[in-house]
Amino acid sequence: MDYGKLALDKHKELKGKIGVEIKDTLDSKEKLSIYYTPGVGAVSSYIAEHPEEARDYTWLNNNVAVISDGSAVLGLGNIGPQASLPVMEGKSALFKHFANIDAVPIVLDVHSADEIVSAVKAIAPSFGGINLEDIAAPICFEVEERLKAELDIPVMHDDQHGTAVVTLAGLINAMKVTGRSLKDCRIVVVGAGAAGTAIMKLLNLYAQPEILAVDSRGIVSPDRTDLNDDKKKLLDFTNPHNISGSLQYALKDADIFIGVSKAGLLTADLVKIMAKDPIVMAMANPVPEIMPDVAKEAGVAIIATGRSDFPNQINNSLAFPGIFRGALDNRVTKITDQHKIAAAEVIASLVENPTAEQIIPSPLDDRLVPSIAAVIK
Amino acid sequence: MDYGKLALDKHKELKGKIGVEIKDTLDSKEKLSIYYTPGVGAVSSYIAEHPEEARDYTWLNNNVAVISDGSAVLGLGNIGPQASLPVMEGKSALFKHFANIDAVPIVLDVHSADEIVSAVKAIAPSFGGINLEDIAAPICFEVEERLKAELDIPVMHDDQHGTAVVTLAGLINAMKVTGRSLKDCRIVVVGAGAAGTAIMKLLNLYAQPEILAVDSRGIVSPDRTDLNDDKKKLLDFTNPHNISGSLQYALKDADIFIGVSKAGLLTADLVKIMAKDPIVMAMANPVPEIMPDVAKEAGVAIIATGRSDFPNQINNSLAFPGIFRGALDNRVTKITDQHKIAAAEVIASLVENPTAEQIIPSPLDDRLVPSIAAVIK
Repeated sequence: MDYGKLALDKHKELKGKIGVEIKDTLDSKEKLSIYYTPGVGAVSSYIAEHPEEARDYTWLNNNVAVISDGSAVLGLGNIGPQASLPVMEGKSALFKHFANIDAVPIVLDVHSADEIVSAVKAIAPSFGGINLEDIAAPICFEVEERLKAELDIPVMHDDQHGTAVVTLAGLINAMKVTGRSLKDCRIVVVGAGAAGTAIMKLLNLYAQPEILAVDSRGIVSPDRTDLNDDKKKLLDFTNPHNISGSLQYALKDADIFIGVSKAGLLTADLVKIMAKDPIVMAMANPVPEIMPDVAKEAGVAIIATGRSDFPNQINNSLAFPGIFRGALDNRVTKITDQHKIAAAEVIASLVENPTAEQIIPSPLDDRLVPSIAAVIK
Repeated sequence: MDYGKLALDKHKELKGKIGVEIKDTLDSKEKLSIYYTPGVGAVSSYIAEHPEEARDYTWLNNNVAVISDGSAVLGLGNIGPQASLPVMEGKSALFKHFANIDAVPIVLDVHSADEIVSAVKAIAPSFGGINLEDIAAPICFEVEERLKAELDIPVMHDDQHGTAVVTLAGLINAMKVTGRSLKDCRIVVVGAGAAGTAIMKLLNLYAQPEILAVDSRGIVSPDRTDLNDDKKKLLDFTNPHNISGSLQYALKDADIFIGVSKAGLLTADLVKIMAKDPIVMAMANPVPEIMPDVAKEAGVAIIATGRSDFPNQINNSLAFPGIFRGALDNRVTKITDQHKIAAAEVIASLVENPTAEQIIPSPLDDRLVPSIAAVIK
């Protein structure tokens, strides 16, 4: 199926995919007087006196901004704000479809951490939550950290934490299927950008397994002189034996490969270096690090990808709708590590009998949002 | 009717009045693949290559931001961004109802001209147009001027230009009813903030009548030492005889009183100082400068107010929906003075037989939007 062609046709036909709706009709002078002047003045006056009740009288209780500067869009890279808008509109559509959240795509024409933080803080009173999206590493780390500290509404960079939560959920079930314990696993994470970094942090927090971070220049190790601050921080909890070298070297006896890198990076020969019955999460989009049939043939016990046309799709839409639904409904102002772990455990628990072909629920499973929302409190 | 009470109840029941809608269903993996990954990647790639076609594939062709910093909200003054949100949501609802435009309320937590301009420029790629709303004078003038110069999408401060357009439309018909010519009229404008300034500029552009600007300290005149730069600029085209003094002095033999000031300012005694059969547009909200019955009793030929419960309601919603509908449909990047005059003439023309009781069409007249949109090109 050529989804690209279908998507171009449909987007042109509908001219985008979201719109604004009014919750009541406005077809009389009376309605106009209630929802606009003069009636609305009483609502504004009331909120000015009772700011803590703003959510009860406005759409703040149910809206989030989906914010990107277009610097790291899907597999497309830095395509800029306007070209990223279809993705952000799509994310808004997913928010509405999965969690009935009113999400507004905001694409930013500024790209430094300072400027992004200033712009988001300036518009923050308009929204009940902030979903950061497709902002390049390492700027995304500083942006999210500062906004979380400075705003009193939930802020989450979904490329980091959505991916991390769903990856952890998949691994929890993969452990059951292969009879392993996560804390005893040797894990190689390829790709030390937004998603890879968040995955490693969450796995460390959850089970302190042995983790090796690998980027395009090899294992992230203390003898590297090319590491930025964010990669240096990975050394606090990865690479305990301070080893250096290539991906091939890292993979020796590894139980788990997690790829957020590029198509075809994991060959059958490399799989054979890993421990017996390894677990592979090959999440490069749209073409994974290794195709499922090749992986199986090479001895992989469980293969997951980012794709909907293979089993075990590691898809952010399993997590973010429920996380924001819970944050909005329960007036959570910070999404914490404990929230992420709780969400991962809930997602994993929705697969009653995990198998190699199903370690993760379908994104269309309608238990996801209410179950996750219940633990974000 | 206690619209304040009704408004509080309805806003709390509905929790605000707008939401986001999806233009298609997303209830299958195929739909998700078309509107989100992987299909949406082709749309983003295409826009990256053909930025001029972004509007054809996104909601940019039909959306505007309704932006306020909450510094001059209705009659409430500087109540801040969050308390202004119900008004901005209401404006968004009007955009949808009258012109089928998808408008997003954005309230800003910054208040200097520099900061507002920076924030709006940062988010501008998200929108097809910018409606500035309820930003206090004199900052509103600099903000609008800079954004118009620096952005390639239509920007309009509705408190200025929406009000000016509808006021001019009313006066065009008031001239017919009273057998006057606007260029020969003596006009006193009370209130030299956003609306008053824009009204004076547009009237001057349209007919160069004799205009006196009056603020809380009297006639704006060259001997005043308390004038800010924006008020000084009014002297370029008002007060040709350099007179000084009070409102009472200004009103002598005036044909037209235009009030964007405060309740009860125009007494019956002051009306009697004006020329015979004067025209009074008393637009203070919610209580006008003079009540219609008092005005009529004092000899006023035509009285207009901002209220829906009296004849001749001077209401911005007569103008802004059609102006933005036309700007979006005709890809107008600047809303010019000529557009405003054309819009005023169209609005006036929709009253086939103007009378003292009807110089302006009803805001519910469904010819307004298409007729105005047709001349914004």
